[in-house]
Amino acid sequence: MSPGSRTRVAVVGAGPAGLLLARLLHLHGIDCVVLESRGRGYVEQRQRAGILEQSTVDVLRRAGAADRLEREGLPHDGIELRFAGRRHRLDFPALTGGRRVWVYAQTEVVKDLIALQLADGPPLLFEAPVHAVEGAQDGGCTVHYTHEGRKRALVCDWVVGCDGFHGVVRDAVPAHARQVHERVHPYAWLGILADAPPVHDELIYAHSPRGFALASMRSPAVSRLYLQVPVGTEPDAWPDERIWDELDTRFGADAGWRLTRGPVTQKAVLPMRSSVTEPMRYGRVLLAGDAAHIVPPTGAKGLNLAASDVAVLARAFARLYETGSTALLDTYSDDCLRRVWRAQHFSSFMTTTLHTAPDQSSFDTRLQLSQLERVAASPHAAAELAANYTGAPLPDEG
Amino acid sequence: MSPGSRTRVAVVGAGPAGLLLARLLHLHGIDCVVLESRGRGYVEQRQRAGILEQSTVDVLRRAGAADRLEREGLPHDGIELRFAGRRHRLDFPALTGGRRVWVYAQTEVVKDLIALQLADGPPLLFEAPVHAVEGAQDGGCTVHYTHEGRKRALVCDWVVGCDGFHGVVRDAVPAHARQVHERVHPYAWLGILADAPPVHDELIYAHSPRGFALASMRSPAVSRLYLQVPVGTEPDAWPDERIWDELDTRFGADAGWRLTRGPVTQKAVLPMRSSVTEPMRYGRVLLAGDAAHIVPPTGAKGLNLAASDVAVLARAFARLYETGSTALLDTYSDDCLRRVWRAQHFSSFMTTTLHTAPDQSSFDTRLQLSQLERVAASPHAAAELAANYTGAPLPDEG
Repeated sequence: MSPGSRTRVAVVGAGPAGLLLARLLHLHGIDCVVLESRGRGYVEQRQRAGILEQSTVDVLRRAGAADRLEREGLPHDGIELRFAGRRHRLDFPALTGGRRVWVYAQTEVVKDLIALQLADGPPLLFEAPVHAVEGAQDGGCTVHYTHEGRKRALVCDWVVGCDGFHGVVRDAVPAHARQVHERVHPYAWLGILADAPPVHDELIYAHSPRGFALASMRSPAVSRLYLQVPVGTEPDAWPDERIWDELDTRFGADAGWRLTRGPVTQKAVLPMRSSVTEPMRYGRVLLAGDAAHIVPPTGAKGLNLAASDVAVLARAFARLYETGSTALLDTYSDDCLRRVWRAQHFSSFMTTTLHTAPDQSSFDTRLQLSQLERVAASPHAAAELAANYTGAPLPDEG
Repeated sequence: MSPGSRTRVAVVGAGPAGLLLARLLHLHGIDCVVLESRGRGYVEQRQRAGILEQSTVDVLRRAGAADRLEREGLPHDGIELRFAGRRHRLDFPALTGGRRVWVYAQTEVVKDLIALQLADGPPLLFEAPVHAVEGAQDGGCTVHYTHEGRKRALVCDWVVGCDGFHGVVRDAVPAHARQVHERVHPYAWLGILADAPPVHDELIYAHSPRGFALASMRSPAVSRLYLQVPVGTEPDAWPDERIWDELDTRFGADAGWRLTRGPVTQKAVLPMRSSVTEPMRYGRVLLAGDAAHIVPPTGAKGLNLAASDVAVLARAFARLYETGSTALLDTYSDDCLRRVWRAQHFSSFMTTTLHTAPDQSSFDTRLQLSQLERVAASPHAAAELAANYTGAPLPDEG
């Protein structure tokens, strides 16, 4: 279980990006070690996204990590938009030539990948915080970390930062070598998990005069629900009944529409931030997933970008160790950033179209409604939304 | 030449909306009188838009006012987008199933309509400022105006305000009966007319780090060129050579691309404002064109919305006087506002995608470029832009 002091690829962070990368590298026969600062229990419980693009499912299948997803995941062929008293469904396969999404929680993806990893490697160390990364511009790197109370050093060819926006690896890239592009949105989400069957079998995105609301799900028995709330909202300010009442109002209580209520098992406020760090490579240090980019949750792109980053990266490492060519590593950042910016644009589009900004004018609201009406009326506008939501194929999907 | 003291429809304003409406009413045999506060020379020289949608051309044809347009107008089958060193052409007929636009200046449309009107009526009075409109909620209206130094009163069934954003008729609608939705954009345009042949045979919309630029034309010998400038810019701060240099830089001087220069014959700074007044009818008072809505010039929609408003309105009056039914007058405002908001949305899309805001972040710029890349890459995104640019058919175009 303990790694040697040398490996080819050191993967920092055991979220979906790091775990999936390790799995893909393993299948290519490339040595790697995963270092995670937190414990397994924490990592497996962290509530995050729950919508997988077609191509994310395809990558998980290629990684041999889709067995439970195939059994328990819920394929979704559309979403519903609610606005101005209207309900409009987007039919994804019809609009995209057959693409769809899956509802399967990130926590479950993580559990599946951890189980695989612990079963047949490569090494995965929990409670192994990394302190420093050296040698990004040299012939090899050293990752300094602590494990079981002892300071250790891992020598490697490459370090991949999958340790998130506040991770250590991102900070190992000197400020002069990276550009950060950022937007902080002027609202937050209050998200709940509830033991209540979803009242609708697809996701509902609601524009309302009281702000945005989203009805999602984790399973046929568990609802995942979100309300736009002001920045700085304390979850305690929202007792369960207030949440249910507000959700009903925003989804259309006036039309007699009601959610099925049930015990709220989790409640949290999520910030809404967009960020991209460029480039995603600095010498022998590469960034993937949230370490390189944050999207607001409205577009459901965070987990999917993590998966596409590491799919591109695994292919680049495979090319390197099979042929000696760094060609795909050299284009890694550019290859990923095209998809990242597409996702950022789509996420901002969904966010600004559906939320009510604190300083929003009646003109702004009319433009939002005009955009939503257009999606309902124009096949091209609908197809654009559906193509972005379901995501483009990855380069090697043929 | 002098009108009676009674007519069916009083049209206030002899811009394209008022003149075209009068023409269409005349062809339906409906009495009307046009009152214009300015003199003919002023009205015929006012520089405004120069792009006619397909359906605007169709309405002008139906009005019998398209003879010179057919001879001298320039049909355009596309535009070019420039951004990030790229040039991308949108092929309108291919993207829209055959729709295109025409380059023909508003001044010329106005001259053609005035000539027709003076040749065979209905009455058109210049230098006839309206002071007040009475009776909007009564059985008939009275329009008080001055002409040839005398105060006069025109009794009518209906008053149509085609007298622009600062017009008298708009103000005749009490504040409690109208809602105004508005956005003032944080930049302006410096526009010039130059006796120089356009260097490209279609319009060029350029996104650049120094701000937006647009290369349009009035004829094969006259260029119409625009630069984004800060709000409050004085035209005198821009000597001709500075304008040409800046235009070249924004269009891509680094790629060796140069405009053909020539004498600048007109120079002005244009504000960028979006505004919609709802509803567009108050009793017997109706608003059309700029009196009801202002669009920023980026989408080239101002003149086209004026034409579509009055086409809808002429049909409504025809129905009334043929059948006695006010059905189409009752839906006039809603019918127009759908198209108005579509145009507002498109104009805002073009404006915010192409201009650099004073407080623009690098994230904002990347989203703009991502949007433009998408238009170049996605047939659906391109078709959306083309459909909005060329405009939808009017209801009665079949």
